Amino acid sequence: MRVPSEMPRPLYVTQPLLPELPDFLPFLASIWQTKVLTNGGPYHNRLERELGGFLDVPSAMLFNNGTTALLVALKMLNLPAESEVITTPLTFAATAHAITWNSLRPVFADVDPETLTIDPAAVEKAITNKTSAILAVHVYGNICDVISLQDIASKYGLHLIYDAAHAFGATLNNRSVAGFGDASVFSFHATKLFHTFEGGLIATSRKRDKDPIYFLRNFGIKNEDEVVSVGINGKVNELQAAIGLLNLPLIEGERALRSNLRRRYCELLTSVPGVRVPQPQPGVLNSEQYFHLVIDPTSFGRTRDDVYDSLKQRGIFSRKYFHPICTDFEPYRRFEIHSARHDPYVNTVKSQVLCLPFHSGVEEEDVNDICAEFYG
Amino acid sequence: MRVPSEMPRPLYVTQPLLPELPDFLPFLASIWQTKVLTNGGPYHNRLERELGGFLDVPSAMLFNNGTTALLVALKMLNLPAESEVITTPLTFAATAHAITWNSLRPVFADVDPETLTIDPAAVEKAITNKTSAILAVHVYGNICDVISLQDIASKYGLHLIYDAAHAFGATLNNRSVAGFGDASVFSFHATKLFHTFEGGLIATSRKRDKDPIYFLRNFGIKNEDEVVSVGINGKVNELQAAIGLLNLPLIEGERALRSNLRRRYCELLTSVPGVRVPQPQPGVLNSEQYFHLVIDPTSFGRTRDDVYDSLKQRGIFSRKYFHPICTDFEPYRRFEIHSARHDPYVNTVKSQVLCLPFHSGVEEEDVNDICAEFYG
Repeated sequence: MRVPSEMPRPLYVTQPLLPELPDFLPFLASIWQTKVLTNGGPYHNRLERELGGFLDVPSAMLFNNGTTALLVALKMLNLPAESEVITTPLTFAATAHAITWNSLRPVFADVDPETLTIDPAAVEKAITNKTSAILAVHVYGNICDVISLQDIASKYGLHLIYDAAHAFGATLNNRSVAGFGDASVFSFHATKLFHTFEGGLIATSRKRDKDPIYFLRNFGIKNEDEVVSVGINGKVNELQAAIGLLNLPLIEGERALRSNLRRRYCELLTSVPGVRVPQPQPGVLNSEQYFHLVIDPTSFGRTRDDVYDSLKQRGIFSRKYFHPICTDFEPYRRFEIHSARHDPYVNTVKSQVLCLPFHSGVEEEDVNDICAEFYG
Repeated sequence: MRVPSEMPRPLYVTQPLLPELPDFLPFLASIWQTKVLTNGGPYHNRLERELGGFLDVPSAMLFNNGTTALLVALKMLNLPAESEVITTPLTFAATAHAITWNSLRPVFADVDPETLTIDPAAVEKAITNKTSAILAVHVYGNICDVISLQDIASKYGLHLIYDAAHAFGATLNNRSVAGFGDASVFSFHATKLFHTFEGGLIATSRKRDKDPIYFLRNFGIKNEDEVVSVGINGKVNELQAAIGLLNLPLIEGERALRSNLRRRYCELLTSVPGVRVPQPQPGVLNSEQYFHLVIDPTSFGRTRDDVYDSLKQRGIFSRKYFHPICTDFEPYRRFEIHSARHDPYVNTVKSQVLCLPFHSGVEEEDVNDICAEFYG
């Protein structure tokens, strides 16, 4: 039995970055003075410009959350009703639900055992004459096989969208991941490295996408006299835009601290039998969104759930993430998982993956305490 | 020609109520200290309780905006895909779009010439064997004919939902309008009397609605192990919840000032030929959301658009509201308007209705200036 030291406080997987409160006050004073509260206010517009620069895309469009951004990203493609969108079951519920809300059908494809992102070979097996798009998901900090996916999309004439909720600031061969495919959708939820309490963004590499997406974000309103599409309300208010402006300069510092944390976790856990730490991907600058392990119960001798429970008892709240996976949800329970393997790998890994506390509030001593869980 | 006095500043139809900024600071300090930013934080839960009390309903569930609330209110009814929902074309775009996003078909029915709310006789004419629900809209401050609509809903076995974006705090015979039908949906957008910058709420008279609506608001997540429905992200963060807590005590004062303003407008305009001021509805406590006129160009001698343009030149921004109406939108342009009349009245009134500046920032002198527009 491990002898855990007393933990001074509960530790969670994430802890939101917040600016110094006094730095927020001049923004508030200005909002109170102008009384511009939402609908594309000055802070909103400035944040949108700054994020476009940060993500190195000509079109960066803010949303009130990542789910609304996903809904609109799919909507702008005008996919045929009831057509099929291939995605991964190893993702947050919003990915599959955004497909369904668009009167489209999610089709699930297996994940690659190394990166846990969607397996291009499985995607190709899932294609039918009803397939209209691929919705791939960068997970934890791993980037999809964007080259193979683009090849498949081009070969079969499919649209390709990325759920990039975990990939803010990631690059592949010095190129921002935000520019891949038809669009990339980010989440700025409080659990994300860069956040606006709740929030999201659609990034695309085409400037001409801006207008249709702006219209869809604001009820399809083109101007005072015209409503041109079935839009939604995806508007971000000025309070949250101000938070975004204040948080953006802080994230490189946070990312550097998380990189150190990742190195320390890897050092301590890399030689534990049955525990797999994430491997760096060639050419990828990691977003440092999550630190995940894959725990093989046969080699390690304990299950992921056992580790989770034991950590929890010590005030360390790791996260079974993603658990459940989409094909475990009631609405998708009867949906097949297409795979290039005999048994979909995602059905194995879903009970093995665990995210550990990963933010600048985790001290070196905390890492030692957490990792002690994995020593016999 | 009128001789307008110099207006000291632009006047808009609405101006958001804001608490004193120093009153916001203790809330911020607490949010910064606890780092609970969203996902049902303490301010969110307190505001939900207070609004349930204010609206006198057992179930009051906060949303990030009125559109998401409408989406979820329809979703919770589990209406058959492609079934028809009867609504009014004289409403904001979100009403019709929320039907479409739910894979349902909006069917438009004419409005009553007195109240400009949906005409029950037109609703009955629009019913087919595909009709599954009525989505009625309280407009400006006028309340729908809730008794006739409930009779029709009961007679034909239809669900009945109210878009109550304009009706916050309104009562009919001392009963809160929030309790009518299967659900009432409010908007807390900055333009509304009570607002949270952006926001919304679903009110129902059944406590058992809470769980399914909470699940739908948070991706269908029932607990750590179960996702039971195709949900969405409708969560409200703690910044906006705190604003709501601070604004709620202020609205009765604002409403009283608007009541005075309404009386003054009516006094000055009631005898202008061709200009119709809103008439009080028996037993209704007005929400005081908007003050609207109906301008008959034949009797008045000028069109609504002419009045609008002329006011605008003097820095008075009235609003052609609702203009365009839903059947003018590109996605619904070919949709019929069902009416109990030969020509739908809504096609006449849509070019006659005008909302005037209506908030506590409008001084008595402003009212005189605005009303001078209507004297020959």
